[in-house]
Amino acid sequence: MFDYNQIIEFDPGTLIRMDLDLEPSFPIFFGYDIEDHFIDTLKQAVSHNSVDRVFFLTDAFIFDLFGGHFYEKIKQAFTTTDIYLLPRGESCKTFEVLQTLCDHLVGKGVSKRSLLIAFGGGSVGNITGLAAGLIFRGIRFIEIPTTITHQTDGVLSNKQAVNGKHGKNNFGLYHAPLLAWADTRYTEHEPLRFKKSGIIEGIKNGLIDQQAFLPFLERAIRQNGDYTPQQLTDLCFKLIRSKFEILKKDPTEKHYGIILEYGHTFAHAIEWLSKDTLTHGESVSFGMKIAAELSCKLVYINDKAVNLHYHLIDDVLQLRPRLPEHLNPETVFDTMYADNKRIGRDVRYVLLKNIGQCKKGDGDYLLHVDKAIVKGVLENFFTNFANP
Amino acid sequence: MFDYNQIIEFDPGTLIRMDLDLEPSFPIFFGYDIEDHFIDTLKQAVSHNSVDRVFFLTDAFIFDLFGGHFYEKIKQAFTTTDIYLLPRGESCKTFEVLQTLCDHLVGKGVSKRSLLIAFGGGSVGNITGLAAGLIFRGIRFIEIPTTITHQTDGVLSNKQAVNGKHGKNNFGLYHAPLLAWADTRYTEHEPLRFKKSGIIEGIKNGLIDQQAFLPFLERAIRQNGDYTPQQLTDLCFKLIRSKFEILKKDPTEKHYGIILEYGHTFAHAIEWLSKDTLTHGESVSFGMKIAAELSCKLVYINDKAVNLHYHLIDDVLQLRPRLPEHLNPETVFDTMYADNKRIGRDVRYVLLKNIGQCKKGDGDYLLHVDKAIVKGVLENFFTNFANP
Repeated sequence: MFDYNQIIEFDPGTLIRMDLDLEPSFPIFFGYDIEDHFIDTLKQAVSHNSVDRVFFLTDAFIFDLFGGHFYEKIKQAFTTTDIYLLPRGESCKTFEVLQTLCDHLVGKGVSKRSLLIAFGGGSVGNITGLAAGLIFRGIRFIEIPTTITHQTDGVLSNKQAVNGKHGKNNFGLYHAPLLAWADTRYTEHEPLRFKKSGIIEGIKNGLIDQQAFLPFLERAIRQNGDYTPQQLTDLCFKLIRSKFEILKKDPTEKHYGIILEYGHTFAHAIEWLSKDTLTHGESVSFGMKIAAELSCKLVYINDKAVNLHYHLIDDVLQLRPRLPEHLNPETVFDTMYADNKRIGRDVRYVLLKNIGQCKKGDGDYLLHVDKAIVKGVLENFFTNFANP
Repeated sequence: MFDYNQIIEFDPGTLIRMDLDLEPSFPIFFGYDIEDHFIDTLKQAVSHNSVDRVFFLTDAFIFDLFGGHFYEKIKQAFTTTDIYLLPRGESCKTFEVLQTLCDHLVGKGVSKRSLLIAFGGGSVGNITGLAAGLIFRGIRFIEIPTTITHQTDGVLSNKQAVNGKHGKNNFGLYHAPLLAWADTRYTEHEPLRFKKSGIIEGIKNGLIDQQAFLPFLERAIRQNGDYTPQQLTDLCFKLIRSKFEILKKDPTEKHYGIILEYGHTFAHAIEWLSKDTLTHGESVSFGMKIAAELSCKLVYINDKAVNLHYHLIDDVLQLRPRLPEHLNPETVFDTMYADNKRIGRDVRYVLLKNIGQCKKGDGDYLLHVDKAIVKGVLENFFTNFANP
């Protein structure tokens, strides 16, 4: 069990290598302001299989913010480095952008021996990872996540995808990066709302499995987002650990790892209905509260455990998004059941039986719940708790 | 060693199951006029993991020829079966078709538990396999190849791809079918030129490794394409075996399997320059002759071995395509070296040291050859042998 209370000194410029030994495995290089180590690390990572060309993929906003200097450094070390600017945010996750990108890279001489670098948030990572997976049936890429969400949650999944006409992440593949490079300095620049959204999955990890993480979060979270470099880096490190501790019990993320979906059945419907006006983390914050209410309704957990959800999200993190006006219990319910019907599975739920422990059903952690009960919980939640 | 001389009786309607034990492994169900067994075979193949929807992908030409009856049978057994008609031939291997197809299938309710069926030649197989690989990060599909080329060569590779602006099969992935269904009755309808093209890779397999296959081919090939069902089925069966015997020495197709690329460095350039006026098999027939000339020039093989190439292709198979006027030694040479420069490798060649044996270089079967020698061989070939 990882000790979340240990104090780890993260001196600016000091590089830590995390080997998570998942399958497929790749190292995460971690620290605050570690850019100076990047070239040496990259050279070592490709020393057995040389790189002929490097393509640096980012968006104009991130590039202006802190990509320019970094890009110049890479270009000095790898003179064949080229840059490609993607549309910002989710809008880059389309087949059209994928095709334009892929053909552009081939035109520029990308080869089996080339390397793509994804510098940005989850969207940049996703489209770059998918392109890397498809070009000549798979070339190498590196993830440099610049957001808390992607550094501490997204990069650990190896899931690459574009959105479809009918839903998010419909089309994609699994393709692991050669390495991930998590410099917490980039996350300092995130707007408060996104910083907070990035911590939600960590709260989830505490609630479902890593109970010992919760007291740390209570102490470590700054409501105004004002972290010292040491504080922010310690927080991000432990957010990564909180997911890793769960994944290592189940490297495939198929069986025990399914508990990471806690609250996500509700969250996916809410996020989709909000048309991206809510972040993923904000949607998950609602989803977890509803999942807690449902767990309580089924008498798996008591009021105190439910209240801990509200306490952590509303009081400790103080992430208090408003649900868009057009959302109501019926639309959320219908979207959930339509979504799941479409992807061919029954709607099943990850629920709690205790803080730090999920309820196990017949062989796995996905539970069937009577539709009427779900509907009742949704109605009650929207009436009483939706907008704190 | 497989005995190519054994006579195998293929009674119409009799189903043979071939398990090639490659990695990843899938069974090939084989025979002449075996359609009546399909539903039972399919039901058994999905008995442990039920199918909610079936999508039958083909093109209008193939559907009219022999898809209609088959489709109705599947629809009777799986009432949720739906059909999707792809553009005919290589024109379906684009990102645009892929996107339209993927979104259409999601709109029609494709799920993790659905099954795609590719009914057609290599293009239908490629686009269907790629879509199956990407939808929800991978769903099941079945290959029903209707051409000799795809039945006896293409389906064994698991390579799925679309073409890019700058080249063929630039973007794709490896995705193995649940099973392949090779009914040689479909191949009876192929135009003579395509039947012959489908046999070229088999001649190649004989020349590079399976020498014992060549006397069989000399006896079995009918120049007018007029095969009895028994003859055609025996030929296709042994064409599959001739590739399988090579693959099983190297299930990854990475090291020893590279010899399957014999003649292909020249062939890819010729096929690309011909703008699809030459079939893949026709291009490979030129490529093998040039590779033989080069092997001879380097004194690896003698004239007799070279002449066997011409004998098998020109006299036995009587595949005698004309090279398009605009092709010449310089354009072929330049395309080869530009192509390979683009994909980041030196131009290296698989060459013969004997009939049935490839020349081994430093550790593998890819040999460096001085550019001037390659140029000389190309010039000589175009002057003296290109159009027999």
